[in-house]
Amino acid sequence: MNMLVDGEWRTDADEYTNEDGEFDRQETTFRDRVRDDPDADFPVEAGRYHLYISRACPWAHRTAMTRALKGLDDAVSLSLVEPVRIDDGWEFSEEYPDPLHDGDYLRDVYVLADDDYTGRVTVPVLWDRERETIVNNESEEIMRMLDVEFDGLAERDVDLYPEGYRDEVDEIIDAVYDPINNGVYRAGFAGTQEAYDEAVADLFDALDRWESTLDERRYLAGDVLTEADLAMFATLVRFDHVYHTHFKCNRRAIHEYPNLWNYTKELYQLPGIERTVNLDHIVRHYYESHGDVNPKRLVPVGPDVDFSADHDRDRLPGGPPPALVE
Amino acid sequence: MNMLVDGEWRTDADEYTNEDGEFDRQETTFRDRVRDDPDADFPVEAGRYHLYISRACPWAHRTAMTRALKGLDDAVSLSLVEPVRIDDGWEFSEEYPDPLHDGDYLRDVYVLADDDYTGRVTVPVLWDRERETIVNNESEEIMRMLDVEFDGLAERDVDLYPEGYRDEVDEIIDAVYDPINNGVYRAGFAGTQEAYDEAVADLFDALDRWESTLDERRYLAGDVLTEADLAMFATLVRFDHVYHTHFKCNRRAIHEYPNLWNYTKELYQLPGIERTVNLDHIVRHYYESHGDVNPKRLVPVGPDVDFSADHDRDRLPGGPPPALVE
Repeated sequence: MNMLVDGEWRTDADEYTNEDGEFDRQETTFRDRVRDDPDADFPVEAGRYHLYISRACPWAHRTAMTRALKGLDDAVSLSLVEPVRIDDGWEFSEEYPDPLHDGDYLRDVYVLADDDYTGRVTVPVLWDRERETIVNNESEEIMRMLDVEFDGLAERDVDLYPEGYRDEVDEIIDAVYDPINNGVYRAGFAGTQEAYDEAVADLFDALDRWESTLDERRYLAGDVLTEADLAMFATLVRFDHVYHTHFKCNRRAIHEYPNLWNYTKELYQLPGIERTVNLDHIVRHYYESHGDVNPKRLVPVGPDVDFSADHDRDRLPGGPPPALVE
Repeated sequence: MNMLVDGEWRTDADEYTNEDGEFDRQETTFRDRVRDDPDADFPVEAGRYHLYISRACPWAHRTAMTRALKGLDDAVSLSLVEPVRIDDGWEFSEEYPDPLHDGDYLRDVYVLADDDYTGRVTVPVLWDRERETIVNNESEEIMRMLDVEFDGLAERDVDLYPEGYRDEVDEIIDAVYDPINNGVYRAGFAGTQEAYDEAVADLFDALDRWESTLDERRYLAGDVLTEADLAMFATLVRFDHVYHTHFKCNRRAIHEYPNLWNYTKELYQLPGIERTVNLDHIVRHYYESHGDVNPKRLVPVGPDVDFSADHDRDRLPGGPPPALVE
């Protein structure tokens, strides 16, 4: 994240800790919706919308996974930013250009959408080519739009927000957010020992509870794969390489939890997911971007873990949607 | 470590990296010997010598373990310094006073031994009450003196440098020093990615080799416990809490190596060793002392590992000296 403060774009996590040293994530700004309705302000249309993401970012990752699982590659274009985010925020480059505009930075896209924009510049961003503006930059809402509103354009019959599970999916996404998805940031960006201790206790309490639940339940909401699993996976797949060391969440690694680890491997092995995971971008982003946590910006070797190894989740009832069984 | 530079006592690891960003450990200065010979400059005598250590420091730990295993508590007195070492180096306090002198800092002890001393102020320090000076501050040499020269004062019949194994013990102590004991520091204090990458590769190559050797060998030199094991243990017991996270040695934790982990537990459970291990001092020292590596000085929660759990080393020939079997 970054923010224009006194005319400078700040990326330092210290800017986001409150007076108790706790990390406060700021609200996102663009909250319009693409709808499966030809009369909507932003109607669904193949080729009209573009998704800007970073392969490093766990929030953006939810949207990239939804697009991959549903087979929306042709319907919604996607581009990446440079993984390391220094003083000027998320950046385009020769390798990772903005395919739609000339700007050097993602903030230029925000300014195209709003001349006066001075807020946080984050991924994911859902851009509308037609109206030349940002529709939305809130990952949960983009995930939901891709899943539900873009369903008619999907090449695979995959419903990640199925009837009969919707309330539970929404509850679980909320329940996982604070202790786990954002919990690792609350630990890593804590400004005081007390704020860290509270965050890390919440995190591992929640992981322990899900470890127990996943012993008898195949996915977070039950027998079926849902958006809640994508939200959880985005944190779990980064955990052992980044959050365990860089954010000091070192009570236990995910590969040391039998159920969470097998669950992570199952999701990694679903069709399309592996190519959404770029560990090189992930580790370089965190270790090289956060000078206030890792002053020498050294990138650690990382653990010996194999996301492609066999998992044991077939022992449980349920399984992925038939369209995802190859 | 700290050093008087331009009139200031420096503790910053950056002071010790060379132009290639590699950590260069400086030589120790006081290298006299206590001998089991009444005519020696420093003859063995019960109650004459005092050992200053930090429970945090792995080098000092070797000497404390030797004293504990041999039962030299009454013969050689021991005191601690404060675990956290900030601008003024190792410090005494109300809780951890200097029992022999008035000074506030360990450097005062060095200056008592040498008015002009401006070198590194390190633990362990072996002090002679009689001649009021430092005999030695090199951990390997103090370990050897306590083991061999003080043997006549030992309450337990424990020989850690046994005839027939001496060449191998010396070779192993040397072989373990660079990649493992000092290797974690070379990784953690590296000033460049290249220096880190080289250190961490050397470290895990060496750990992998010892993991394999210890599958068929009970201790590093064979069937008998030696000084080489104490040198190795001092690094292994700190590894998962400190070196894995703080020094970014995160390819694998020691508790994930079956043989190294069982070996570590066996040594931890030898009589007298547990009370030489103070994990609170260890974690607070590393995380709170090194602002150049950990700017917010947050102390992580640390892993769930139990050094007192059962080990499987009795499957191998050999075992601890009979005097250590309770």
